Amino acid sequence: MSVPVAGPVLVVGSGLLGASVGLALRRAGVEVQLEDADPSVVSAAVESGAGTPRSDSSPDPHLVVVAVPPGAAGSVMAQACRFPEATITDVTSVKVLPLADAVREGGDPRRLVGGHPLAGRELSGPEAARLDLFDDRAWVVCPSDEADPDRVQEVIDLVTTCGGVPLRMDPREHDRAVALTSHAPQVLSSLIAARLLDADPDAVTVSGQALKDMTRVAQSDPALWQAILRANAESVAEVLGALSADLAAVVADLRTGDAGPATLDALSRGVAGRQRVPGKHGTAAAAYDVVTVQVADKPGELASLFVAAGDLGVNLEDVRIDHVLGKPSGLIELSVRPDVSTTLSEGLRERGFDVRA
Amino acid sequence: MSVPVAGPVLVVGSGLLGASVGLALRRAGVEVQLEDADPSVVSAAVESGAGTPRSDSSPDPHLVVVAVPPGAAGSVMAQACRFPEATITDVTSVKVLPLADAVREGGDPRRLVGGHPLAGRELSGPEAARLDLFDDRAWVVCPSDEADPDRVQEVIDLVTTCGGVPLRMDPREHDRAVALTSHAPQVLSSLIAARLLDADPDAVTVSGQALKDMTRVAQSDPALWQAILRANAESVAEVLGALSADLAAVVADLRTGDAGPATLDALSRGVAGRQRVPGKHGTAAAAYDVVTVQVADKPGELASLFVAAGDLGVNLEDVRIDHVLGKPSGLIELSVRPDVSTTLSEGLRERGFDVRA
Repeated sequence: MSVPVAGPVLVVGSGLLGASVGLALRRAGVEVQLEDADPSVVSAAVESGAGTPRSDSSPDPHLVVVAVPPGAAGSVMAQACRFPEATITDVTSVKVLPLADAVREGGDPRRLVGGHPLAGRELSGPEAARLDLFDDRAWVVCPSDEADPDRVQEVIDLVTTCGGVPLRMDPREHDRAVALTSHAPQVLSSLIAARLLDADPDAVTVSGQALKDMTRVAQSDPALWQAILRANAESVAEVLGALSADLAAVVADLRTGDAGPATLDALSRGVAGRQRVPGKHGTAAAAYDVVTVQVADKPGELASLFVAAGDLGVNLEDVRIDHVLGKPSGLIELSVRPDVSTTLSEGLRERGFDVRA
Repeated sequence: MSVPVAGPVLVVGSGLLGASVGLALRRAGVEVQLEDADPSVVSAAVESGAGTPRSDSSPDPHLVVVAVPPGAAGSVMAQACRFPEATITDVTSVKVLPLADAVREGGDPRRLVGGHPLAGRELSGPEAARLDLFDDRAWVVCPSDEADPDRVQEVIDLVTTCGGVPLRMDPREHDRAVALTSHAPQVLSSLIAARLLDADPDAVTVSGQALKDMTRVAQSDPALWQAILRANAESVAEVLGALSADLAAVVADLRTGDAGPATLDALSRGVAGRQRVPGKHGTAAAAYDVVTVQVADKPGELASLFVAAGDLGVNLEDVRIDHVLGKPSGLIELSVRPDVSTTLSEGLRERGFDVRA
């Protein structure tokens, strides 16, 4: 790691992300000041070791990290410009709107550098914060058009100090990217799940892993997602509009009572597009071999399988358990690097496991 | 198990499903005759113990199981009616078209009872066949409108003899159900993945688990799926047409530059619809608690976690590994019955595991 970013750093919003930033900076010895609209949230973050509460007598921060929801981030960034020397960044998952809001509300564009760490999950609150939340994860850095290069470097230093991997991107490019890879898929997951409301109960019984996979994120909080989509409406509309045209072509094709070239083209382009989805650690999805093993659905059965894989010195990159209606035993798919897949499959067979072809 | 179905049973098409039917029937002591357009496939199925090759001197079958692709199933069912006493069924994943084809080509509708076992995976060929492939899995039974009740019972006996759970359904109702739960989601997965082809390589870097989940089935064979969609074009067009209208409403809403009531409604309906997706063994998805544990990404780490769960006597209903770009350690989500989730989380903590809130 390079030299830690210069403190003190003020973190505004001490929930999961804010408190995790505080913990990561404290790990590197950087002084951290904490704020939150809710005093009990600050107390919990202080308790966890994420920093100390900012007071009127605290020294001015060198850097302010705004960790509030996207709708409020721009306004809070503008307010943070009251510290005349400070560089201002945020950690929200959209970038154009908060920067525009901040400038409109009087923020100094030369000191505004947006950020988006690709970390965090459905958990929330300072209690869920982790000092290693950002370790080795990508953290997108999106300078405003007028940002000073020194300010950009300071945010890059913040990222590396927190253990993250900086990935510089234009704010518009970032928002188009998350529209494509996260926001539009979220809407489609909801729409697929919503279609099930009209279905006969028996119909839904006839379903498998695909439906589960495709509707998993439809479980997310609607209010939270409305706020995210609101902040990135234009880019999401663009992706969904293009997809809508693709869908119309397939529907028109199927309405002829056949599945012709338009449908085949969509399916083929899907195979090619899927190749571009990164796997674990950002490597290509296609880079792993899958070894399939049948195990009984009893306590300890999975354990013996993983113990055997560990004994063989094979690291499992991914694990999938096959779930099918009424099946009391399971197919387990183990994804491993291709150079160890034979070691794993032969080793498991020697140990009596039911490895499938 | 009740009395085994009366043999001999002729299985036409000796690939994964056909050979597995043969193995399951042989397990129950039923005589099985095998056919396939490819003699080497019959040899492999015979080799695996799925039955004996049918010859001109073989006795007439009581029951014929047609296990060929959907486009050919109707014609093969019609041909099977040359055995004047036989009941005819199939195992394809669409039901209306094969039955209609069979009748049009002279098949006797009183003896035609379609079937669809919810089993089998991306594997194919008799080498991948399993005698327990259908054990405790649903197997939809779809009589033609004119089928004799005795014939329907015979196919139900076939299902139970093979270890499956019969689920009687009207053919049209079945095809609408799989359009909703499998065929339409498949098309949408392909369309989402296809959108990635136009993206900047950097854009795809900014992605997470949602995109992986939603594009997983887009990897499937386009030619196979074109055949399936062709055989169920009308029902799939209906589902996708309705979804297309839902999508248009969201796109129109987002194009205003905001995410208003239409978007919130889609997200909320998605949450409600997702509740209807069956979990493992056909139980409600919402029935499990999730315990999240942070583990290091090294051989043996998962093993020790599963050993601990086994020691605690807790059965894991599902396991998910969180994959995020560049992150060399993993969050593991363990799904368990709610009555044992506290046992698991506290027991794991006592054993030194990093259990998250």
